[in-house]
Amino acid sequence: MRLVAGVDVGGTRVKSMLCDFDGSVVLSHTASTPERPGDGIVDVITDTVSALLELARADGVDGALTAMGAVVPGLVDEATGSATWSANLGWRDLPLRQRLQDRFDVPVAMGHDVRAGLLAEFHLGAAMGAPDALFVPLGTGIASALLASGRVVAGSEWTGEIGHVIVEPDGPLCGCGRHGCLEAVASAAALGRAWRELGRDGDAEILSRAVDAGDPEAIRIWQGAIDALVRVIGPVCAAAGTRLVLIGGGLALSGATLLDPLRDRLVHAIGHERVTVTQAALGDRAGALGATLLAMEAAT
Amino acid sequence: MRLVAGVDVGGTRVKSMLCDFDGSVVLSHTASTPERPGDGIVDVITDTVSALLELARADGVDGALTAMGAVVPGLVDEATGSATWSANLGWRDLPLRQRLQDRFDVPVAMGHDVRAGLLAEFHLGAAMGAPDALFVPLGTGIASALLASGRVVAGSEWTGEIGHVIVEPDGPLCGCGRHGCLEAVASAAALGRAWRELGRDGDAEILSRAVDAGDPEAIRIWQGAIDALVRVIGPVCAAAGTRLVLIGGGLALSGATLLDPLRDRLVHAIGHERVTVTQAALGDRAGALGATLLAMEAAT
Repeated sequence: MRLVAGVDVGGTRVKSMLCDFDGSVVLSHTASTPERPGDGIVDVITDTVSALLELARADGVDGALTAMGAVVPGLVDEATGSATWSANLGWRDLPLRQRLQDRFDVPVAMGHDVRAGLLAEFHLGAAMGAPDALFVPLGTGIASALLASGRVVAGSEWTGEIGHVIVEPDGPLCGCGRHGCLEAVASAAALGRAWRELGRDGDAEILSRAVDAGDPEAIRIWQGAIDALVRVIGPVCAAAGTRLVLIGGGLALSGATLLDPLRDRLVHAIGHERVTVTQAALGDRAGALGATLLAMEAAT
Repeated sequence: MRLVAGVDVGGTRVKSMLCDFDGSVVLSHTASTPERPGDGIVDVITDTVSALLELARADGVDGALTAMGAVVPGLVDEATGSATWSANLGWRDLPLRQRLQDRFDVPVAMGHDVRAGLLAEFHLGAAMGAPDALFVPLGTGIASALLASGRVVAGSEWTGEIGHVIVEPDGPLCGCGRHGCLEAVASAAALGRAWRELGRDGDAEILSRAVDAGDPEAIRIWQGAIDALVRVIGPVCAAAGTRLVLIGGGLALSGATLLDPLRDRLVHAIGHERVTVTQAALGDRAGALGATLLAMEAAT
């Protein structure tokens, strides 16, 4: 059996998968991300994939690694296979593709976690068969990926960095040092912070339940986040003609509490109804699944 | 000689060109657009191209029409070749490609005026060789076209309708009946109106000279328009990773008075410097040139 490995390096977890070429997941694994691994991420990925292969052999899987894909957050240069920059993970201009190729001696694909997630949603999830889509995972941070004419837009290394578009010039301080970035207003993390600053307990999930219960302070925070999201998503949908907005990440679990008003405000902002807002289907497996798809492309 | 014709139907003028397959313009012509032509636009285009061909023959050009391209504003369905809707020109669901094919019996390409303009800027103008670009003509109205991975994003019929994204909920009334659309704040027409509402004389060009002269009221209007543009252009550049913003239309003639502060505000809004803002190169010929390029594609 020919196998591919896909690894998704996140801020807190490293998710990995071994798939056959039919796309069936043979084995998957989740580990904690070491704190600020920097260039050490090459070892983390190498160990993860080696462990997966060993486990597969122990399980009696008879297969050889044909290719692998690794996806990371932050700035990614897909053309050169370089992990340009990640504030949280601590690397800069890391030639990740080359390093992994040296270790495994198979073709390696290297990509951006959110773009890989959209690729997976397009082939296996909520964007299946869609000609265009905008994928926006709302978690600790916010980034995006854009599908146009059935292709994920690669663009430049700054592609998808919508989390650092300023939406409220006098808004909350962002991790990047500026004020009022989308991420500082509308990420799951930001919503939890805003809620606790009111002296309330809990995170964005608790906040969303308070919204459902009609709590006026909760509703004010929630509406503010939705307006901020629309200020960024609206122009993108208008310019690219995007008809499908996929919301992912932890905040997507709020379901209709988030998606219905988001769609209403979006329709109002862009002036037409030809847009659907829905929950992404693959959850936190999207990135690793996308990495296996990138690996299959690299193998052929 | 094999010839193609390109026709750009605008709100006030119909621009047409006859080109050979090397892209050399053999003949060009500009006429007034009849008021609200509706379906009558088929006759207008037919007469225009027939007159061009006759003029060419009278000039001793020995060539046959191989294909033609027609581009129009408003909502365009490029897949079906239908001019879906134009408020100013008065058509709705007009099967323009089919009608023109019936008249001329050659392959006909049908497209959106701004996307065709970007195609021309990409092959012949200010976006030559750029992998990604956002083209924003600022004239009577505002629309946009997006280039990603060297291809103009077609999307849906609403693609590029950034002029009707609401940027100021309590802003000026727009032609579409809503308040605060980008077009009602930052188009050349809107700027001229805002200037005259202050009791001043002249249009957006006069206004831009007053900005250069340091007139505080002029600067306030101008800054408002730039902020509104950035609120729409910023998210698009962030999501698509766009590194080149091409400003066209009448307002682009203001040059650095517009482009320099627009770039400064844009860099601030998206949080990085990897973006260039420049003037489109082909002026009001972009649409018709793009139409001839679409015709060449259709011919092959």
